[in-house]
Amino acid sequence: MGSARNLLFIMCDQLRWDYLSCFGHPTIRTPNIDALARRGVRFTNAYVQSASCGPSRMSYYTGRYVTSHRSFGNFVALPVDELTLGDYLRPHGIRVAVDGKTHVEPDPTALRQRGIDPASAAGQLLLEGGFEPFDRHDGVLADPHDEEARTNQYSNFLRQHGYVSENPWLDYANSALGAGGEVLSGWHLRYADLPARVEERHSETAYTTDRAIAFIAEQRDKPWCLHLSYIKPHWPYVAPSPYHQLYSARDVVPAVKSADELVAPHPLYASYLRHQASVTFSQNATRERVIPTYMGMITQIDDHLGRLFDSLEKSGRFDDTLVVFCSDHGDYLGDHHLGEKELWHDAAIKIPLIVYDPAAQAQASRGSTCDALVEAIDLVPTFLDALQVEGPVNRLEGRSLLPWIRGYNVPEWRDFIVSEFDYSFRTATRRELGRSVRECRTITLRDHKWKFIHCEGFRPLLFDLEADPQEFHDLAQEKALAPVIEHYSHELVSWLRARKTRTTVSDEFVDTWLEQSRFKGMKIGEW
Amino acid sequence: MGSARNLLFIMCDQLRWDYLSCFGHPTIRTPNIDALARRGVRFTNAYVQSASCGPSRMSYYTGRYVTSHRSFGNFVALPVDELTLGDYLRPHGIRVAVDGKTHVEPDPTALRQRGIDPASAAGQLLLEGGFEPFDRHDGVLADPHDEEARTNQYSNFLRQHGYVSENPWLDYANSALGAGGEVLSGWHLRYADLPARVEERHSETAYTTDRAIAFIAEQRDKPWCLHLSYIKPHWPYVAPSPYHQLYSARDVVPAVKSADELVAPHPLYASYLRHQASVTFSQNATRERVIPTYMGMITQIDDHLGRLFDSLEKSGRFDDTLVVFCSDHGDYLGDHHLGEKELWHDAAIKIPLIVYDPAAQAQASRGSTCDALVEAIDLVPTFLDALQVEGPVNRLEGRSLLPWIRGYNVPEWRDFIVSEFDYSFRTATRRELGRSVRECRTITLRDHKWKFIHCEGFRPLLFDLEADPQEFHDLAQEKALAPVIEHYSHELVSWLRARKTRTTVSDEFVDTWLEQSRFKGMKIGEW
Repeated sequence: MGSARNLLFIMCDQLRWDYLSCFGHPTIRTPNIDALARRGVRFTNAYVQSASCGPSRMSYYTGRYVTSHRSFGNFVALPVDELTLGDYLRPHGIRVAVDGKTHVEPDPTALRQRGIDPASAAGQLLLEGGFEPFDRHDGVLADPHDEEARTNQYSNFLRQHGYVSENPWLDYANSALGAGGEVLSGWHLRYADLPARVEERHSETAYTTDRAIAFIAEQRDKPWCLHLSYIKPHWPYVAPSPYHQLYSARDVVPAVKSADELVAPHPLYASYLRHQASVTFSQNATRERVIPTYMGMITQIDDHLGRLFDSLEKSGRFDDTLVVFCSDHGDYLGDHHLGEKELWHDAAIKIPLIVYDPAAQAQASRGSTCDALVEAIDLVPTFLDALQVEGPVNRLEGRSLLPWIRGYNVPEWRDFIVSEFDYSFRTATRRELGRSVRECRTITLRDHKWKFIHCEGFRPLLFDLEADPQEFHDLAQEKALAPVIEHYSHELVSWLRARKTRTTVSDEFVDTWLEQSRFKGMKIGEW
Repeated sequence: MGSARNLLFIMCDQLRWDYLSCFGHPTIRTPNIDALARRGVRFTNAYVQSASCGPSRMSYYTGRYVTSHRSFGNFVALPVDELTLGDYLRPHGIRVAVDGKTHVEPDPTALRQRGIDPASAAGQLLLEGGFEPFDRHDGVLADPHDEEARTNQYSNFLRQHGYVSENPWLDYANSALGAGGEVLSGWHLRYADLPARVEERHSETAYTTDRAIAFIAEQRDKPWCLHLSYIKPHWPYVAPSPYHQLYSARDVVPAVKSADELVAPHPLYASYLRHQASVTFSQNATRERVIPTYMGMITQIDDHLGRLFDSLEKSGRFDDTLVVFCSDHGDYLGDHHLGEKELWHDAAIKIPLIVYDPAAQAQASRGSTCDALVEAIDLVPTFLDALQVEGPVNRLEGRSLLPWIRGYNVPEWRDFIVSEFDYSFRTATRRELGRSVRECRTITLRDHKWKFIHCEGFRPLLFDLEADPQEFHDLAQEKALAPVIEHYSHELVSWLRARKTRTTVSDEFVDTWLEQSRFKGMKIGEW
């Protein structure tokens, strides 16, 4: 055991916090992830900054809240002034690469405006959110003629293995075959129980793991950070054989929902209830068809992580590699009568987080849990701390988790986590509610007792998590709780004002500028 | 008369709104600026977004509030993702240049991080805030060995004319000679009545005007935008002969101050009262020595603008040039027992604004006044509107003033202006008040009736401008006015949340993304 020199930053997409055996799921089997939890610390109150791929990941990669990094939605590029993990580690000689998905949106306009050649090294990294695209493939190549599908490495790999089409991701990896040999698109939930049209070893999860093992082997003794970022168990809900039938309807836990929730629902929640995914997932038939496959995809990831962990073990990399396992957000799967994610319930914003730290100081905490209020933005500071790289205090909004893991004193911690969502991209809901594209923000504050949801232009929501951990009863209109609403309204305002927006000079510069020679000659107001 | 093809964007530095004859000053003579007001519209309620050079100018140049552009103080570079007037106009073939001061802080680190060559055209423009540095000189070269003083064009000009020193700006243009031939630094207010050590024709104001006339002549029929940006009447308060003695103590209007202000003052105001400049300007001797020179510098600018306006007249440029005259903030000059600027009184945040529009539609408004609540951020939208260039709705926070000038219907206008200040750079005050460098913000909301000042970590301030236009009585602690405080607190929060931070995609993209082919294949939740 020694200090971390490398980082293995594993992310799943749309993996709910409670669909792992070590997080309490009664029927799923995830022995390898469970084993990682026994080596590390399992964070039982970990939250993402947005229950949507893009904004959540930009928070993970920048260490900043959505309000600060300003990538408010999928397809909203990170502004060119934001720095990411790669910007912090690369100057220290660490190779920072991605294998799988980042959801980083390129912004060629910004590059053109700033005279940055997209083909230059800096330009390439900007287009990739600071990750060297060792093997980037984001999935969701929805268009049959998708341009990216023509060129990305996984598509080429599929074609090389006989899955020949313009978009083999769509036509093979995420489709099934009907009884008559017809191609059935995985976009349709009713086909979730059919196997994907690829062999398991050619599936996204297998391929992505192979590439991670290859990357790590390639580095030998040079320090690296690999973002191993699985696209699954994100929809389309299609698993390769045998994972499509590993679980059955008997393994599906009941939906967390109550008829009470449908009585006088908050207008935004009411609109989400009408979404296609909500209507579909409110049918038991959907859950019983989709969730076994969702679980199968998770166990598939676990199996492959077993292979990866074996290789780390053999090469000694567990001695010098910090390993994180997390997810970018959850999935309602019918809970609260909803499908998909985006809103404020734990099913959407809570994630499974496991951190394995090879350092000797972490010995005492191995296999333990930590119930501190932890956020996705804490990972960049944790990574920098583990590698003893200093990060900019005036940018990073998260905090290193190492004190929790190494048993240092944690002098004070945050009072609540914050998760945001901008539903302006939900065209139907936005129009139905009569909101302009700049008036669609929700901001959730959650502590151990309360969850308060600010909902721009509407009344807030409030849940008492002690009395109602399942979040069935929105208490925001209870007169007696007006002081609670008032309290969180004030906290929200303080939080908004405290965002780290002065990014171009350090706090230290501000503190000491007057003593700097350049300004010393200024004598203002001397007689 | 025709449409504007060119923009002449004239700014003075630290010119109070009420130190022009056309804005009601009883003794100052500014006939040429008054004449511009007779040709255009005089805005009687115009405010800057911060009473400090850098942040105010970044708002002028970006069309965005300080909270949005994030250049919270002098020496805080604009983040590299912000766009400025030059970015908007240059693609339309308009040459955008500066003659004089911008206070743009270069950020070589950001350029290095993004792989932008500082010597490239894009790099140069970024380092200059989007203005081609036709002749940039910012003044305040405070260090005798100032590096910029060695190379800037005005310093070279001075040396060529016999004012030879490492820093002729400091040693000649802003110093005087004592009776015994000793050099007296203009930084000391007691020498304000002595003439500068340069001939008037070699002074900053004369030089800058000469350069503007040359620039405009050079352009012939090519469209241009010139930011003619005088450094005066900003301190050091030194004027060349004869402007140092154009006015005398008899011409000085009394300080706007009341003993009431000193009773139980707000902690932040109390701290500002102790600043060197406040103590000095609270002496009548200071005001009587400095203000005549301050007024002399203004009349000097006016005289030179007379030359410039004559040349515009002769060349026909008044027919196709929009001309704006404004200031970046005011100067307390002893009002409210204060010196300098930065706080919330009109002496600091209110500016003189005159807009001359050559268009025929502006004929009816010539010589009139407009008392709408107008902000510095309105200029970029006004410029774009005048040149019929479309600006990005998701970035620009100001609004075109042309409807006021051309008599179009103005369907709704803002309810209040906002001016911000971050006093973290005021080291003594910050430490005295026990604030960290990220807890020093004030945000002023002002309408026609009330001025409300949010002061992070302290109680707010409130002035009733109808009953107390001189802002002597802070009413924030009056119980009966609690609802007013409550109202503006809510307005402040709404304002904070409404900032235009989603800059990388347009509102239109958000509105229509689902219909775009790239996303059309996504079928979420279909059975």
